[in-house]
Amino acid sequence: MLNFILHTPTKILFGEGQIAELSKEIPADARILITYGGGSIKRNGVLDQVHQALEGRNVLEFSGIEPNPTYETLMKAVDIVRAEKIDFLLAVGGGSVVDGTKFIAAAADYQAAPDPWHILETTGAHITSGIAMGAVLTLPATGSESNSGAVITRRATGDKQHFFSPHVQPVFAVLDPVVTYTLPERQIANGVVDAFVHTIEQYLTYPIDAKVQDRFSEGLLLTLIEEGPRALSEPQNYKVRANVMWSATMALNGLIGAGVPQDWATHMLGHELTAMHGLDHAQTLAIVLPSMLTAKKAQKRAKLLQYAERVWNLRDGSEDQRIDGAIAATRDFFEKMGVPTRMSDYQLDGGTIPAMVAKLGEHGMTALGEHHDITLADSQRIYEAAR
Amino acid sequence: MLNFILHTPTKILFGEGQIAELSKEIPADARILITYGGGSIKRNGVLDQVHQALEGRNVLEFSGIEPNPTYETLMKAVDIVRAEKIDFLLAVGGGSVVDGTKFIAAAADYQAAPDPWHILETTGAHITSGIAMGAVLTLPATGSESNSGAVITRRATGDKQHFFSPHVQPVFAVLDPVVTYTLPERQIANGVVDAFVHTIEQYLTYPIDAKVQDRFSEGLLLTLIEEGPRALSEPQNYKVRANVMWSATMALNGLIGAGVPQDWATHMLGHELTAMHGLDHAQTLAIVLPSMLTAKKAQKRAKLLQYAERVWNLRDGSEDQRIDGAIAATRDFFEKMGVPTRMSDYQLDGGTIPAMVAKLGEHGMTALGEHHDITLADSQRIYEAAR
Repeated sequence: MLNFILHTPTKILFGEGQIAELSKEIPADARILITYGGGSIKRNGVLDQVHQALEGRNVLEFSGIEPNPTYETLMKAVDIVRAEKIDFLLAVGGGSVVDGTKFIAAAADYQAAPDPWHILETTGAHITSGIAMGAVLTLPATGSESNSGAVITRRATGDKQHFFSPHVQPVFAVLDPVVTYTLPERQIANGVVDAFVHTIEQYLTYPIDAKVQDRFSEGLLLTLIEEGPRALSEPQNYKVRANVMWSATMALNGLIGAGVPQDWATHMLGHELTAMHGLDHAQTLAIVLPSMLTAKKAQKRAKLLQYAERVWNLRDGSEDQRIDGAIAATRDFFEKMGVPTRMSDYQLDGGTIPAMVAKLGEHGMTALGEHHDITLADSQRIYEAAR
Repeated sequence: MLNFILHTPTKILFGEGQIAELSKEIPADARILITYGGGSIKRNGVLDQVHQALEGRNVLEFSGIEPNPTYETLMKAVDIVRAEKIDFLLAVGGGSVVDGTKFIAAAADYQAAPDPWHILETTGAHITSGIAMGAVLTLPATGSESNSGAVITRRATGDKQHFFSPHVQPVFAVLDPVVTYTLPERQIANGVVDAFVHTIEQYLTYPIDAKVQDRFSEGLLLTLIEEGPRALSEPQNYKVRANVMWSATMALNGLIGAGVPQDWATHMLGHELTAMHGLDHAQTLAIVLPSMLTAKKAQKRAKLLQYAERVWNLRDGSEDQRIDGAIAATRDFFEKMGVPTRMSDYQLDGGTIPAMVAKLGEHGMTALGEHHDITLADSQRIYEAAR
């Protein structure tokens, strides 16, 4: 096990009806800005529940945070925060809204440069404070509600980059599985794939005798494999939605990644697919991961065998057969979730691969993966294999 | 899954050499009291490491916190905290030192009653503040370093009772597996059994479709079964000690118990054995658990079958055979760890069982377990079966 520091201070309020409890978690005199995306939280009643919980409190709203939230949109919220002296941000939505709100929290008070885009250029290293924030999660997927990271896109340049800071970690997160009942099938499917790949990025590297972390990761993967398809076929099954929601949070709150090597190359290649073609984040992961695992078979051999046995119960045949079987099972799982795994399924012929590789280079992604051995040439081959 | 609130704010610093980092976690102007037990941290150099890390800081010491820490001893520390205006407590030791320090933290500033024993009589419900505290863990076992609970004994009356309060949760915990190398075999064995039974108390109840929690618990049990005996036979194997240490913390930081029914009857019966006969905490758990599981076979049937299959790989034979096999394997595991599982192994003939049952009654333990269906008569039978 590697040395690690693990800090998971976000207080989780989990279960049906917990939105009603959130006012206890926000200081009584706070000037609150509710941030959200489109109108779905109006249609499904979540925004009403939040307003009821905050009755009598000082509350403003900012809407319009888009999937893959943009700097351009978020800077409008930053202006409101400054003008209205907001001191608590309440993100109501999925990972994009939570991520975007983290940027607002950091940018509103950013001292290190005149333009807060600097936060992304320096992955958050110069953030020294943030507006306090909480989250009401409506889409289990990214884990952003209980970690300190965010991914932001700059529309003008097509850049999609990430930052981290303890100053933007939500102080609380409300997770009510009931609010996910009305989500479109595609969003639930994306969320399951996203949580699955988050787990894989922290698990499927090389053995380091971190037995608890391995067993926890395998537990999340098994749960997502069992419950993901049921979340689609039984959309109002509370138990299933609760297990999916809790898995997604646990997949990226720092716990399973503490003390182990981490990969994240699939995410980096995926980000360029989203930035260039607007694909959903999970779609890009479903495209890249099978071809990434195939390309890195040698380096990931021991963990691929463990994954094959413990997650997919593949115990017979040669080692290579078990490894290939596990990669095929992973692809099948994504397909079963309704998330296609080839660029061609999204009408992409691979013609932009050189441009995406160039963007990877611009973003410094020239030595990816747990061994820092994935060059731009490797990334090109991995994209090609995913056409 | 049941609704839950989960808050795990203790910052974990894990790994070799992390004691050197602890001064960053304590305010620069703090008046620090280091609390510890006997002299083992002097002999193994841990106290020196702590003093080096705190060089130039305002530091006092309080030693003599015993296993099963007593109100009588701890109140002496409370006097020092008040007289010296201590504002940070640094517990250096195992669960007893951490538990005792939590009592000191709460008692030093206790307003609800003149005598802080009131904290135990009311399980901490009236605590409104506490001296800030951190922990340097030297014995992986109780999980106390990252939770809000403590067990305190009153020597004068033989009472052993617990309390909880978010105001006594350590702000940080340093976990360096190297400091466990010099522990006596008996303490490592006790720690493994303790962590194992903590997990069982939160896992082996009845199914509630909490798949993540179940898989996480099974992961901890499997890790302890694999690594526990190796921790005895290879005392300086860093990887093994790291896995044991992390398992023990994860077993009782709230995570695996969030959203699931909990039992704790084995602990309650065990506490009376310690209070009356001075047995080690883990010894009492090893005595009580097998006979508790046997007595509650009907109520725990579904989870016992799951435990048999997933933890002990018992898939053949009748359901009753698998259940009996799992209980026998549990007993064997404790014996293999060198912790005997019968009262007679500790020269107890059961003559004090009526007195222990009477104490359970005095302490209000008249409806124990996840179904609140274990009466005093049941407890008597469970003690009898464990002779």
